[in-house]
Amino acid sequence: MSAYDRLTARFARIGALGEAAGMLHWDASAMMPPGGGAARGEQLAALAGLRHDLLVSPEVSLDLGEATAPGAWEDANLALMRHAHLRATALPTALVEAVERANSACEKVWRNAKASADFAMVRPHLAEVVRLQREVAQGLGEALRMAPYDALMDGYQRGVTAADVEPVFDAYESWLAEALPRAEAIQARRGAALPLPGPFPVAAQRDLCRAMAQVVGLDFNHARLDESLHPFCGGTPTDVRITTFYDEANVAKALLGVLHETGHAMYERGLPEAFARQPVGEAAGMAAHESQSLIVEMQACRSDAFLDFLGTRLQASFGGDPAPYAAANLGKLWRRVERGFIRVDADEMTYPAHVILRFRLERAMIEGRLEVAELPEAWNAGLQKSLGITPPNDALGCLQDIHWHDGAFGYFPSYTLGAMAAAQLMAALRRAEPELDAQLARGEMARMMGWLRGHVHSQGARLGLQDLLRAATGKPLDPADFTAHLTARYLTD
Amino acid sequence: MSAYDRLTARFARIGALGEAAGMLHWDASAMMPPGGGAARGEQLAALAGLRHDLLVSPEVSLDLGEATAPGAWEDANLALMRHAHLRATALPTALVEAVERANSACEKVWRNAKASADFAMVRPHLAEVVRLQREVAQGLGEALRMAPYDALMDGYQRGVTAADVEPVFDAYESWLAEALPRAEAIQARRGAALPLPGPFPVAAQRDLCRAMAQVVGLDFNHARLDESLHPFCGGTPTDVRITTFYDEANVAKALLGVLHETGHAMYERGLPEAFARQPVGEAAGMAAHESQSLIVEMQACRSDAFLDFLGTRLQASFGGDPAPYAAANLGKLWRRVERGFIRVDADEMTYPAHVILRFRLERAMIEGRLEVAELPEAWNAGLQKSLGITPPNDALGCLQDIHWHDGAFGYFPSYTLGAMAAAQLMAALRRAEPELDAQLARGEMARMMGWLRGHVHSQGARLGLQDLLRAATGKPLDPADFTAHLTARYLTD
Repeated sequence: MSAYDRLTARFARIGALGEAAGMLHWDASAMMPPGGGAARGEQLAALAGLRHDLLVSPEVSLDLGEATAPGAWEDANLALMRHAHLRATALPTALVEAVERANSACEKVWRNAKASADFAMVRPHLAEVVRLQREVAQGLGEALRMAPYDALMDGYQRGVTAADVEPVFDAYESWLAEALPRAEAIQARRGAALPLPGPFPVAAQRDLCRAMAQVVGLDFNHARLDESLHPFCGGTPTDVRITTFYDEANVAKALLGVLHETGHAMYERGLPEAFARQPVGEAAGMAAHESQSLIVEMQACRSDAFLDFLGTRLQASFGGDPAPYAAANLGKLWRRVERGFIRVDADEMTYPAHVILRFRLERAMIEGRLEVAELPEAWNAGLQKSLGITPPNDALGCLQDIHWHDGAFGYFPSYTLGAMAAAQLMAALRRAEPELDAQLARGEMARMMGWLRGHVHSQGARLGLQDLLRAATGKPLDPADFTAHLTARYLTD
Repeated sequence: MSAYDRLTARFARIGALGEAAGMLHWDASAMMPPGGGAARGEQLAALAGLRHDLLVSPEVSLDLGEATAPGAWEDANLALMRHAHLRATALPTALVEAVERANSACEKVWRNAKASADFAMVRPHLAEVVRLQREVAQGLGEALRMAPYDALMDGYQRGVTAADVEPVFDAYESWLAEALPRAEAIQARRGAALPLPGPFPVAAQRDLCRAMAQVVGLDFNHARLDESLHPFCGGTPTDVRITTFYDEANVAKALLGVLHETGHAMYERGLPEAFARQPVGEAAGMAAHESQSLIVEMQACRSDAFLDFLGTRLQASFGGDPAPYAAANLGKLWRRVERGFIRVDADEMTYPAHVILRFRLERAMIEGRLEVAELPEAWNAGLQKSLGITPPNDALGCLQDIHWHDGAFGYFPSYTLGAMAAAQLMAALRRAEPELDAQLARGEMARMMGWLRGHVHSQGARLGLQDLLRAATGKPLDPADFTAHLTARYLTD
């Protein structure tokens, strides 16, 4: 057995344990009775511990030193193994354990702090989390030869740095300052939307969501659609589990949510089977993943063409007056621009402002240019500058997201990198498929999904984000396609 | 850290991996889309492989040599760890792999052989399985200082030997020869049962099954009831997963099946929490487990008293003429004695005859007194002797069960040991609870389940079967309580 073969056997085991953990996470959210939580924690901890043990073993180090790859894919696989081993061994166990303790303590206090809009309550805990994340970033950065903040970003999305992101985000911010008031004025001129009648019985919503996931291309021989409080896409590439949450008063929540999760699911389904449970067979990262949910939900399914198709299906499912289901009205309802305090409720035009704010603040915290005590003020000033609004309290400001309070630094950019990558991929796809809108208007997505499978899904983790975009679209990350998309959708009367 | 503490930490990990595998098995039967099968196989194989690696490690051997237990439970735990390590290390890897290959190959061929009632098709495969099981039994027997067949039985139920079982089975067979014709005559005199009207809509069956599981005492904060082709009880002690299969034409199938699985579930729920994920915190074995499903389903829930309660609930659920739901009529329907070819369809009186036949044949095969080629003839002669019927073909004879064709030898006795243990426990329980029938007639099972929790569930795997029965009932396995139960139910006019 060659060193490379020993490594693939070991990583197949690590991958299988990861798949098992993925299934147990899904079960915990969608199926598990409340009393199963403690035991589930033990099961997941055992799986995580064994994966770590398998990854950091000295044998891996020896085999990595010796292994040669028989081809380009195998070479990329080997590089990813080396990368994973480096990340897993870069930090002393004492630091990793301190991080876990601090994150867990902070996250618990944060829930109460957010509920009572009291930043002071969580401040010392968050300060400890940040102090440790600085150490983590330093340690990972040295091992990976990256800047500290880049090493944290790398944990969520390989192949893109803060230096890549910064000019892109700056350009977007400048564009938005000018575009947002114009979009608001146009929106005001267009007038109010007709509300959808409702109520929308859960059984009919479930059938419609399932049918729309199939329209996107999801094969339920390899997928399930269930319910959970927080919708997500989990499971494994041959057995994808998406969830949603039905609200009888609001059909958009589940329907657009399922289309979003189906985009994620299609990515998993299209990953290269020949490298299942190998590092190179995984998705390319969080931004890449978000690009696939957003190209389906935001680019394709909220387009005029698809809304035309979707309105007919909605009317068929729920009956009543057809007028509110006209594409133009659905567009007014589901493509509404609004300056708000809450990121997760934001529209696609203002969403990046929320992300850019967080990117700057978290980077400053990791690089020691911002202290946790200064966070609320910096947050409020930043939001005032970009959206012209100031949160009335920290629950609507710097306490709103779990991420930092659970130790996740470097994740936020992925959302907007995903949105921009989605627009960039869509522009390339439209060049290859000039008839795309006609297809979408008929609910035909096979050619679109085929293009994505070829250019993104089937590439696995072979390429980092910038290289993936270069190969698929001919250029690295470029906000121009995203602003062009927004211009067409929101700035054209 | 003491050697004992190192061992408990390791076995906790092994236990957590076992729980994870249990959940994934449940998911595979109740939830998984068909396309997930191959990946699930990889996940389960990885978990099994890691559990084995953790169990056979030389460190376990060293710690077992050094460890001392701080109390009686810990001492039993240590003995079970030693036992598990011995079983896992007794056989050479080459033999274990040969067994897996042979079982898997034979099981596949058996499906076709059974479908075409062609024993010759599977004969060479089964001969190879038996040849290897003889080696396994030999190897395990030497390591455990047991007779070869006993070492196989030990894999399913500790603490009972073929020498214990043989006189019990012989006595039952003699009793049955005389009792069966009498039971048939009495049954004939009682006349035919009124059929239950039906159909029984699935939603109403589901509600009733859930309610009846709660009557037995199942807490759905720690349990789920779902559907699968082959009903079973899986999951973990704080998160039990039972399944059933609804047939709108036949309510008994799901209802009595759920009561059976709930008996298993209550055993899991009552296992000692202080030893969760430790060997001594597990159930005492397959016969002990079957005793708990059968004491609920057969002893309690098919009693006249409980059928009275159940009939009222059935009528409330499904309406129509109340006459078929009278306890006496339900008794005629659900306690019908009948000589048949198929074990899984057998009533409680003839079921042991099927098991005794298999016990004798499999023991003879393992001990080299019977060759596979002679099996069909020996089977047919045995069934003719005990039940007076001869299978018209091998699909209704020696091809009916998967067990041997999948390498499971020593399992069959557990079914009847469980039925007898259930009767023996019920007799002791009735001495402690003279008002039991009045409680059952009101659908009250709390005192019954409390007694079982104290005498069986909370004992975990501390005792082998014979010792468990001695502690709970004052005597080792004794078929007299079982035949007394059958006499009262089937031989009393």
